[in-house]
Amino acid sequence: MKTSVKLIILSLLCISVSCKQKNNENVEINSTHEPVKEFSDIERVEPPNWWIGFENTELQLLVKHPNISASIPEINYVGVSIKKLNKADSPNYLFIDLDISETAKAGKFNITFKFENAEDLVQTYELKPRDKPAEDYAGFDSSDAIYLITPDRFVNGDSENDTVENLNEKTINRADDYARHGGDIKGITDHLDYINDLGFTAIWPCPLLTNDMPRGSYHGYAITDLYEIDPRFGTLDAYKTLASKMSEKGMKLIMDQVANHCGLEHWWMKDLPFKDWVNYQNIYEENINSWTHETTVTSNHRRTTNQDLYASKKDKEGMTNGWFVSGMPDLNQRNPFMAQYIIQNSIWWIETAGLGGIRQDTYPYPDKDFMSHWAGAIMNEYPNFSIVGEEWSYNPLLIGYWQDGANNRDGYESNLKSSMDFAMQNSIVEALNETESWDKGLVKIYEGLANDFHYATPKDIMIFPDNHDMSRIFTQLKGDIINTKMALSYILTLPRTPQIYYGTEILMDDFEKPGDHGLIRTDFPGGWEGDTINAFTSNGLTEAQKEMQLYLKKLLNFRKSSRAIHEGKTIHFAPEKGVYVLFRILEEETVVHIINKNDQPIELDLTRFEEVGLAGKSINNVITGETIVWNDMLELKTKGSIILTTKL
Amino acid sequence: MKTSVKLIILSLLCISVSCKQKNNENVEINSTHEPVKEFSDIERVEPPNWWIGFENTELQLLVKHPNISASIPEINYVGVSIKKLNKADSPNYLFIDLDISETAKAGKFNITFKFENAEDLVQTYELKPRDKPAEDYAGFDSSDAIYLITPDRFVNGDSENDTVENLNEKTINRADDYARHGGDIKGITDHLDYINDLGFTAIWPCPLLTNDMPRGSYHGYAITDLYEIDPRFGTLDAYKTLASKMSEKGMKLIMDQVANHCGLEHWWMKDLPFKDWVNYQNIYEENINSWTHETTVTSNHRRTTNQDLYASKKDKEGMTNGWFVSGMPDLNQRNPFMAQYIIQNSIWWIETAGLGGIRQDTYPYPDKDFMSHWAGAIMNEYPNFSIVGEEWSYNPLLIGYWQDGANNRDGYESNLKSSMDFAMQNSIVEALNETESWDKGLVKIYEGLANDFHYATPKDIMIFPDNHDMSRIFTQLKGDIINTKMALSYILTLPRTPQIYYGTEILMDDFEKPGDHGLIRTDFPGGWEGDTINAFTSNGLTEAQKEMQLYLKKLLNFRKSSRAIHEGKTIHFAPEKGVYVLFRILEEETVVHIINKNDQPIELDLTRFEEVGLAGKSINNVITGETIVWNDMLELKTKGSIILTTKL
Repeated sequence: MKTSVKLIILSLLCISVSCKQKNNENVEINSTHEPVKEFSDIERVEPPNWWIGFENTELQLLVKHPNISASIPEINYVGVSIKKLNKADSPNYLFIDLDISETAKAGKFNITFKFENAEDLVQTYELKPRDKPAEDYAGFDSSDAIYLITPDRFVNGDSENDTVENLNEKTINRADDYARHGGDIKGITDHLDYINDLGFTAIWPCPLLTNDMPRGSYHGYAITDLYEIDPRFGTLDAYKTLASKMSEKGMKLIMDQVANHCGLEHWWMKDLPFKDWVNYQNIYEENINSWTHETTVTSNHRRTTNQDLYASKKDKEGMTNGWFVSGMPDLNQRNPFMAQYIIQNSIWWIETAGLGGIRQDTYPYPDKDFMSHWAGAIMNEYPNFSIVGEEWSYNPLLIGYWQDGANNRDGYESNLKSSMDFAMQNSIVEALNETESWDKGLVKIYEGLANDFHYATPKDIMIFPDNHDMSRIFTQLKGDIINTKMALSYILTLPRTPQIYYGTEILMDDFEKPGDHGLIRTDFPGGWEGDTINAFTSNGLTEAQKEMQLYLKKLLNFRKSSRAIHEGKTIHFAPEKGVYVLFRILEEETVVHIINKNDQPIELDLTRFEEVGLAGKSINNVITGETIVWNDMLELKTKGSIILTTKL
Repeated sequence: MKTSVKLIILSLLCISVSCKQKNNENVEINSTHEPVKEFSDIERVEPPNWWIGFENTELQLLVKHPNISASIPEINYVGVSIKKLNKADSPNYLFIDLDISETAKAGKFNITFKFENAEDLVQTYELKPRDKPAEDYAGFDSSDAIYLITPDRFVNGDSENDTVENLNEKTINRADDYARHGGDIKGITDHLDYINDLGFTAIWPCPLLTNDMPRGSYHGYAITDLYEIDPRFGTLDAYKTLASKMSEKGMKLIMDQVANHCGLEHWWMKDLPFKDWVNYQNIYEENINSWTHETTVTSNHRRTTNQDLYASKKDKEGMTNGWFVSGMPDLNQRNPFMAQYIIQNSIWWIETAGLGGIRQDTYPYPDKDFMSHWAGAIMNEYPNFSIVGEEWSYNPLLIGYWQDGANNRDGYESNLKSSMDFAMQNSIVEALNETESWDKGLVKIYEGLANDFHYATPKDIMIFPDNHDMSRIFTQLKGDIINTKMALSYILTLPRTPQIYYGTEILMDDFEKPGDHGLIRTDFPGGWEGDTINAFTSNGLTEAQKEMQLYLKKLLNFRKSSRAIHEGKTIHFAPEKGVYVLFRILEEETVVHIINKNDQPIELDLTRFEEVGLAGKSINNVITGETIVWNDMLELKTKGSIILTTKL
């Protein structure tokens, strides 16, 4: 019996070695130790490497290998000690708690797994030196403008990786909005100049990790390997290249992460380490062969249960534990090994790619105490980092609740620098679409912005005209170009951190099927060989598209150096007669933003704004370059926004 | 010259004495002093009396009399000393700062005003003993249900006072919705049994002080004498009788006060004490003879400027200083004498009538620091008192901001026990009017109530189906009786302090002209001699009206003794299939409130509510008296609310 078990283990071992060749690429010599002879006997060790010099000296390795729980691992490396071994419910996992003391030096060492009745297994593990001090990981902030990209739909930079043999979804079909279209990391990297020239200083690509799902995997939110770049998007090296090229240009790379769920085809779903690794795991396991939407306990999506003092336990559980959809197992972050796994995964990516921020998906869905712990652990390592969490709510109470520094009565501290301002986004659309009256139109943004008194740090809250889940702003504004410009210029002048979705600069729309996800994420023209229209060269763009591109470019490049917009004080005046005026002021710089909804010429009485102190001063139009003197009256010739600065 | 001035003073004095005879009614003997010979030489001294034993020993007398500023007043009474004399801009005012030390005893004393070149004037002033300890002035709270009355439209208890000769508006005309109809204080007092039997424990009559305006004075919000009951409503004694009869029944009298403005015919508008007694006083004085809406600087009504960190000074001033309407001069509470006048006036009424609360009108319009000071001064004297402030806002951020205990970032402390929940009122109407869907219908109240996490003390916030400024709830709910019942039962089960407008119990409506103020404030049937319909006797009421009266009566009388509703914990469950269930629990008492919007019978799975611990228990229907056992399933036979209690 024992011999046969050993044989099975060895044969499984061979399989695992062959499919994990990537772990066994080099033999390195490190400066402080003898050269290490490298082994990769183990199917999976995660994180795949770690670093010296973190605030937190603990590291928990997930080791996956047939019957690994029967082994006793040994490490012989100065400064590294095994503090605890944790067996899982599955015998094929072992969680090793390491302490990496200050005396540990960067280098490789072997972990020897000793079995009572089998051969040792050996896995080489590396502790890397850190590239830069913790303080230098500067997260995005209000001085940035973030370009959001759906990578599959931006640019196909490498047609070689359009389909990958061993992945489930094998086809590429640009005619199908829900199929893969071939966009990739190289496509983004190749067009950094375009993005940078437009005036963006940061990029948030939707998730780039492997989504080995049978269909609809292009969006990236059903991750099946949290340590692997999806081969159809490129390699880890491609991702690191993107990061380093962005860094050279002073741009920040924001990673879209998902702590709430994974994809149903995640490798661990075939052999779950614990009985409670995912929520409603028993129901999943009972129905694993007939898994459908009907068998899934989906979330009740009642997000207010996170704050509601009166929410029933039943509804709270239904919200947090239910699966987002049947193809996305809901991770149980109350399992401490899962919690540690997710935290280490985030830190691994920050450190590996030198990230400039994280966007965390579906923020109200995971266990909220875990989310606080997760964000806190990251901020503890990277004090100047930024994380933005997605809660789709029009309620300023919830937007405020999630932001670090909130005066929450329940004492909740999120450690989250930024939340998302869906409330203001919605108000902007209403303000521009509605006909003016006492309580309609521009008053929606005037009163919406007044809610800032509730927020800990309004400028760190993310504002956006739309995103990858929403109808395009041009569609929301019913195809009105002037309204679209007004929305954009207002967003870029607010005390906020702005995010703009790729294609907004060329008026991309979803009129055909408003709100349809596949259509919202339309291919960026010029991103594919043979595209007749090319937004990068302006070839084939309409005049309106070219004008919008130029408009955004002027605005963004002005904003880039406008400290008054980044961190100035804000003064605004209640809308009157269809005109709403907002000022941003820092020291000698004053930026004036005027929204005028009147089609016919009107005179704006400037004496009303006396307190701002512009009387008699010269001031420049950011878009036209024209200089005017701020006297008693300004003629507003036609509907539109006017952005003026004392600085240019 | 001196003689002639003296003669003028004497002649003016005679006039003033003759018209202020009421001040010179009795000669009293107090227990600790020699009998005081009483004088009332002075045109006006306010407050007209005061009390011993307040926490604050300061009292500021407003003395109005021709050329009174030329006098030096003297007081010779143990424990009472003049601390400071303050001249105003008008020579006809003197503000005397008194200190009433702990040694002062109740009694009367004379104030002698000495003039260099004229005879002394003497005014008798009384310090009364307090009726009861400060702690015994118990304000309304969540154990109360408040009946709101427009006094002119409830009951004409005394037809003798329908018109009063020396007042500006001389007619009574029940056919005109904006004329006086003759309702009065006696009308309320005579029908206390009706109100008490219905189950109300408190009454808030709209203002009863003199509104000597030429027209539209019936509503009471244009006060022209802050120390006088409008003679058309009755006398001070009538008001005190109402208060004492209510007190005998354990009911609380809530006074509707207005700190923001007065009526244009207020006596002081003819001789304003200071140049800044009212806001925009210079503009008023320049245009006094041609005063219209056009000459008035009206408020911009941009109420968010109170909280908005970005609001311009211009807009803040426009909000606070602008007049509410042209007939209502805006009081300048930043004038310290005005501030003191308003505070003392409030305390005078609390102490005089033994009030059970104040409702303060147009709360966001006066200077907000003053309002904090005002409420603080009252609460300092009456620690168990209650004040509710009116801000008509659907924004929970503002509702929360005004309530005492708010974690306001600007540090604002309102000292206000209660604010008004227009947000929840609005949500209730939407919830019932809308067809159910993911984000419409009952979810509006479920998510609306979830906002309670933001409030300091939700149960102290006032909730109401409508009020004297809003379309009647029956009209808002499109004449749907079942929906009206659901709104009322929900309101009366919430962790709130409920207020219900008179006539709601008989389905009063304003369908004819929805929202029309005059129509909203329709005469209560049976309140006038000769009324063919009488809601007090049920004579002539429709079956639907009688049923609603009975329904409310059952609900209110149940609520009266339900501590679970007054102060129990709240658990609610997200609406499912058109059914929304809320529980209130205190010790052994559980109250269940079910809203069912389904016309057809459905089965409610009670196992979902397992955590509430009702399984197997008997529970009684508050309306039908029926007893059921809480098992796995409850059949809901038809649309409507069900209120169950474990207590009955």
